[in-house]
Amino acid sequence: MGMIGGGKDAFIGAVHRIAANMDGQIELCCGALSIHPEIAIESGKMLFLPEDRIYMNYEEMITKESQLPPEKRIDFITIVTPNFAHFAPAMMALEHGFNVVIEKPITLSLEEAKQLRQKVAETGLTLCLTHTYSGYPMVKQARQMVKEGKFGAIRKVMVEYPQGWLSTLTEREGNAGAAWRTDPKKSGKSGSMGDIGTHAAQLTEYISGLKITKICADLNIVVPGRGLDDDGNVLLKFDNGANGVLIATQIAAGEENALKIKVYGEKGGLEWHQMEPNTLLVKWLNEPTQVYRAGSAYLSDAAKHNTRVPAGHPEGYLEAFANIYRNFAQTLTAKISGQQPSEYMLDFPTAEDGVRGMAFIENVVASGQSDQKWTDFIV
Amino acid sequence: MGMIGGGKDAFIGAVHRIAANMDGQIELCCGALSIHPEIAIESGKMLFLPEDRIYMNYEEMITKESQLPPEKRIDFITIVTPNFAHFAPAMMALEHGFNVVIEKPITLSLEEAKQLRQKVAETGLTLCLTHTYSGYPMVKQARQMVKEGKFGAIRKVMVEYPQGWLSTLTEREGNAGAAWRTDPKKSGKSGSMGDIGTHAAQLTEYISGLKITKICADLNIVVPGRGLDDDGNVLLKFDNGANGVLIATQIAAGEENALKIKVYGEKGGLEWHQMEPNTLLVKWLNEPTQVYRAGSAYLSDAAKHNTRVPAGHPEGYLEAFANIYRNFAQTLTAKISGQQPSEYMLDFPTAEDGVRGMAFIENVVASGQSDQKWTDFIV
Amino acid sequence: MGMIGGGKDAFIGAVHRIAANMDGQIELCCGALSIHPEIAIESGKMLFLPEDRIYMNYEEMITKESQLPPEKRIDFITIVTPNFAHFAPAMMALEHGFNVVIEKPITLSLEEAKQLRQKVAETGLTLCLTHTYSGYPMVKQARQMVKEGKFGAIRKVMVEYPQGWLSTLTEREGNAGAAWRTDPKKSGKSGSMGDIGTHAAQLTEYISGLKITKICADLNIVVPGRGLDDDGNVLLKFDNGANGVLIATQIAAGEENALKIKVYGEKGGLEWHQMEPNTLLVKWLNEPTQVYRAGSAYLSDAAKHNTRVPAGHPEGYLEAFANIYRNFAQTLTAKISGQQPSEYMLDFPTAEDGVRGMAFIENVVASGQSDQKWTDFIV
Amino acid sequence: MGMIGGGKDAFIGAVHRIAANMDGQIELCCGALSIHPEIAIESGKMLFLPEDRIYMNYEEMITKESQLPPEKRIDFITIVTPNFAHFAPAMMALEHGFNVVIEKPITLSLEEAKQLRQKVAETGLTLCLTHTYSGYPMVKQARQMVKEGKFGAIRKVMVEYPQGWLSTLTEREGNAGAAWRTDPKKSGKSGSMGDIGTHAAQLTEYISGLKITKICADLNIVVPGRGLDDDGNVLLKFDNGANGVLIATQIAAGEENALKIKVYGEKGGLEWHQMEPNTLLVKWLNEPTQVYRAGSAYLSDAAKHNTRVPAGHPEGYLEAFANIYRNFAQTLTAKISGQQPSEYMLDFPTAEDGVRGMAFIENVVASGQSDQKWTDFIV
Repeated sequence: MGMIGGGKDAFIGAVHRIAANMDGQIELCCGALSIHPEIAIESGKMLFLPEDRIYMNYEEMITKESQLPPEKRIDFITIVTPNFAHFAPAMMALEHGFNVVIEKPITLSLEEAKQLRQKVAETGLTLCLTHTYSGYPMVKQARQMVKEGKFGAIRKVMVEYPQGWLSTLTEREGNAGAAWRTDPKKSGKSGSMGDIGTHAAQLTEYISGLKITKICADLNIVVPGRGLDDDGNVLLKFDNGANGVLIATQIAAGEENALKIKVYGEKGGLEWHQMEPNTLLVKWLNEPTQVYRAGSAYLSDAAKHNTRVPAGHPEGYLEAFANIYRNFAQTLTAKISGQQPSEYMLDFPTAEDGVRGMAFIENVVASGQSDQKWTDFIV
Repeated sequence: MGMIGGGKDAFIGAVHRIAANMDGQIELCCGALSIHPEIAIESGKMLFLPEDRIYMNYEEMITKESQLPPEKRIDFITIVTPNFAHFAPAMMALEHGFNVVIEKPITLSLEEAKQLRQKVAETGLTLCLTHTYSGYPMVKQARQMVKEGKFGAIRKVMVEYPQGWLSTLTEREGNAGAAWRTDPKKSGKSGSMGDIGTHAAQLTEYISGLKITKICADLNIVVPGRGLDDDGNVLLKFDNGANGVLIATQIAAGEENALKIKVYGEKGGLEWHQMEPNTLLVKWLNEPTQVYRAGSAYLSDAAKHNTRVPAGHPEGYLEAFANIYRNFAQTLTAKISGQQPSEYMLDFPTAEDGVRGMAFIENVVASGQSDQKWTDFIV
Repeated sequence: MGMIGGGKDAFIGAVHRIAANMDGQIELCCGALSIHPEIAIESGKMLFLPEDRIYMNYEEMITKESQLPPEKRIDFITIVTPNFAHFAPAMMALEHGFNVVIEKPITLSLEEAKQLRQKVAETGLTLCLTHTYSGYPMVKQARQMVKEGKFGAIRKVMVEYPQGWLSTLTEREGNAGAAWRTDPKKSGKSGSMGDIGTHAAQLTEYISGLKITKICADLNIVVPGRGLDDDGNVLLKFDNGANGVLIATQIAAGEENALKIKVYGEKGGLEWHQMEPNTLLVKWLNEPTQVYRAGSAYLSDAAKHNTRVPAGHPEGYLEAFANIYRNFAQTLTAKISGQQPSEYMLDFPTAEDGVRGMAFIENVVASGQSDQKWTDFIV
Repeated sequence: MGMIGGGKDAFIGAVHRIAANMDGQIELCCGALSIHPEIAIESGKMLFLPEDRIYMNYEEMITKESQLPPEKRIDFITIVTPNFAHFAPAMMALEHGFNVVIEKPITLSLEEAKQLRQKVAETGLTLCLTHTYSGYPMVKQARQMVKEGKFGAIRKVMVEYPQGWLSTLTEREGNAGAAWRTDPKKSGKSGSMGDIGTHAAQLTEYISGLKITKICADLNIVVPGRGLDDDGNVLLKFDNGANGVLIATQIAAGEENALKIKVYGEKGGLEWHQMEPNTLLVKWLNEPTQVYRAGSAYLSDAAKHNTRVPAGHPEGYLEAFANIYRNFAQTLTAKISGQQPSEYMLDFPTAEDGVRGMAFIENVVASGQSDQKWTDFIV
């Protein structure tokens, strides 16, 4: 693995490294870790990279790595830069034959996302988008139970994602992560909906197996002076006629990272909270609610494939992240050895999720500006 | 107290009797408990009513009771019939000088609600609307903390009220409560929004101190064959610019009566769940969340006034209901003795809440039928 | 009903009145509410008692009430005085033909308890001991499931009852309830074990269906200067060989009334928390935990008999208390009309529970003073 | 790092590797992974070990590794074999100059533990004992708050550790982990108390800062036919006069790994549940309970040092385990570079904890066999 972005003090870069590293199947071999040479070098040394594989920019890294002999060359490149700096390195990496992992949202625009998807299709390479929350074992269990029809047809989804960290203008107080996320040039057309709304939308479609077809959005800049929406509410319609509500806000003072989803079908429903991720509440009409727990023997293979320790030994965010990397790595390994990756190996978000995520952003922003109630979800 | 409706097997009538009776300040003296004479008589006997005060219909009861000497006459009449049978007895009771308690929603239409409000104003009598959930002590605490500005300006409200009991066409399987609630002639223009959405709206305004000014509603008949909405989602705007989301659904299979509200301000927020009503989560920006508990010495007087037992001895739905009756009764007692009721005595929903509730129903139904995103909340 | 003790400002007297009154089947007709005449009179008036039935002491009340004609006479007497003043009025009431309700612990000594039990047997009257916590519907459900063998043989019980209100010497700061509870003359041989340990022991035997046969107790006076134990831990052995741990402490600073019990059998177990009483966790070996909820249609008749409202409408401490009164009253009504009370009517604690409770206190105190590990539980 | 034990299918070996690997500071370089050569080789290959560093037994590994030049030689050896196979390799490793990590309990006997402690003292090497649960950030926070006197003097500790996996004779059904744990020759004098009671005892002393001085133990073999205790309850006295209760059971059917601890002082207390490890409840006399959350800015440096991601991104068991490895590795790095490790680096369990753990086992077993109530805790 080579990494673009993620120099010291970058939050998400460190998370990617821990996640990639967790299962001992992936090794960080090179990096273009910062556009500031001194940070790039210092960060590379801290990560025990050989000096000749600490690069000053992504072009250099991709070019030089592609010239290495196959057995020394990296298998894939991870891109953990701010949104605006995803597309170009991803495209270049694919063009040079490298598989790619990208932080969400995949690009700055829907058009770029489609180009990447097209390039992936042309090259036959693999692109993985790190929608972390779909990596949790109990999310797998939820998806599996819906897919098996345990709840009958799905009728309603309620998903909420409140955070409180943008309750003040922290982007003007030296918070680098807040600064680029609220800057349209670096973050894209949307703030909260791009940053966390896309997670909520992806999780919704992932668990329910449904596709959003219509939306009605209310996007707000709550904290005066901010450059992008920090709050929003979206009514949803799905392809089977079900309805839903998606709330994503970063001004919910006192909230941490409280992504919650509830899905209801004809016969029952389920509820999952990211902050207590090892529990899945399974509800039934006229029967007691069941508490499904990660690591339990009674879970589906889909859940078990994404767990490391027995029930009662909590796994968390880093393990969910690592599941995405592990499945991606298993897929690469299978492909390299000429085998068909299994369903479970292929269970990670792809360029297709990236396209839908960018469509979500663009559609939500358009709907937010419209006086019309319902607008079609156009991809 | 005299009761109209609430014969044996009626759910809410029994609840009203327990609530009224709880504190030993109110006595059931007469009733027109059913339109079926035999049920009226049998129910009256079960309740130890004297035979001459078991009436066959509300007209008889109001007429005869009003002819009793003052010291024997009831002070107020409680109306616990289905929605369509609220207005006429309430109006007649007021005209005969009786104070009134009514189950929500107050009437079948906004127009009727306004007439009742007008009649209350003219007569100087007291009308109490049993929005039970605003009777909980921790709801009082929440309202008080918002009012005192602990959280700064309120920015967002998320209120959800999922039930599952209408997940099937139970109204055709002998469920009497479901039958009238889903019948437009008996229930009014809305099903779920009238039955539980009004509770959520009232609670929202009660706690936040804000008024809804604009709405965008999505109303659904999810279970095929049903006569009224059984599900809905409403985006809200408030008079101070805050936004909100209100979800009321009766097809959330596996849910009981899961009313939850979250209110966020500039400095923090709060969260309350009706099914664990003795706990109020109080959240702060960059400080630990606090768990406020009913019955504690540190609570506001507003909360303490509505509690009977010390912390750790859970009070519930019946006590919240009883708080409304107790405050109403204290108000009557004060008025009868020529005193001004205190702020805490007057803390129960009134005809004004009834008017806003009916406006909520009419506005939500209109918005649900409109292609326009936002419609003004017209009272 | 006539009441002995429970003048204004007395906590438990007010609770008894609400509980007795809740279902409209019991009426407070007379009282000897205080040994201070002015308080007795004032309290009686506040409770709307006729002046000639406000008595100055229990002897007067029992004597005069027993001379009333049967149709005017009270059916039973409730004794809510401090522990030391239970035995004499209870005995006198029984001797005069009145049924009796007593707050726990039943008497000051095991010997007195046995005398009361003997008197009850001789007279054929009914005595009810208000171990409130066994009145909760989910406790009934728990007991029923154990009784039906759902969990196989019971192997272990863990019961804890932490309170924090005696963390300081509050008995010297004007807290009247604390003052008599920590005074051996008024409270008996034990403080915390008598006040709350007896509840935990009764609940343990009630749910598990087992009898304690051996104990090993550690009793402590944690707050210096206190007259009785304010904390204790007891190891238990039961008649089927199961083991248990009982913790009762009133110096757990920050706790309210956090009675919790866990019972484990061969196939599963259950967990119940008094502060969230409408939920019973039912655990299974290798299957998901189930969340049983009060008011649900799937519950046992034993649970349903002790509920008033549907699931999701929380009942609490006062309703649990009222269940005990309601079952007691139904039993009296059946006996008066010459019928055999049903199993559910008879489901309230009796003199037998009182005897076991006093035995618990005496055995625990003896064990606490012994150097021997295990002592037999002698009744 | 070199590993002894932990071949494929061994649970705890895999956990150690993930934990050691997580932060990219430790590399697995060699192993004697199994006493079965074919498993040793296969496991080594799966872990990408060079063939010449896949050893057939620990003697070979320690001998050969000690002959490597310093820059190639491993810094420490991790021992993840069953209990009976800890002492010999640990002693040999220390004698050959290697630092050591050992799974708990440290040895088979107290005497061996003391010998190891002595050897560590003589050599100046570092020994780390993986009492995982003390690695959680909120445990650090708890310890820190107690240490700072926030709660005043500690008065009582309640710690419980129920598991259900030994509810049946699973050791006879092919469960290898159960088989050695219930075999006195491989596990030592105690089953449940050695396996999980030691964790509970270590956590108790770690958080409270107190030392156990007296115990009264009830040890049970609940499942007939088992070779060692699978259940036990221990009353505790601490060096400051506080009391406590420790429950460790592996026959609590339906429980996973439900370690919970409550600590009460004069002014308040705290509660922590291993299965929801990112939350620490902080309770106060007459003030609302506070919910401290991992990753929050308001936490102590002790907690922050042991966290990787912001609040709301749950960390779990593997991260707690990794904290122990990370602190140990930082200590080694500091010592290697001639620096004094910081307080936070040195915050991992040592041979001293191992000695106290073995003393706990031996004292508890002795007390369990005694008729005397209290026995001194002898180290």
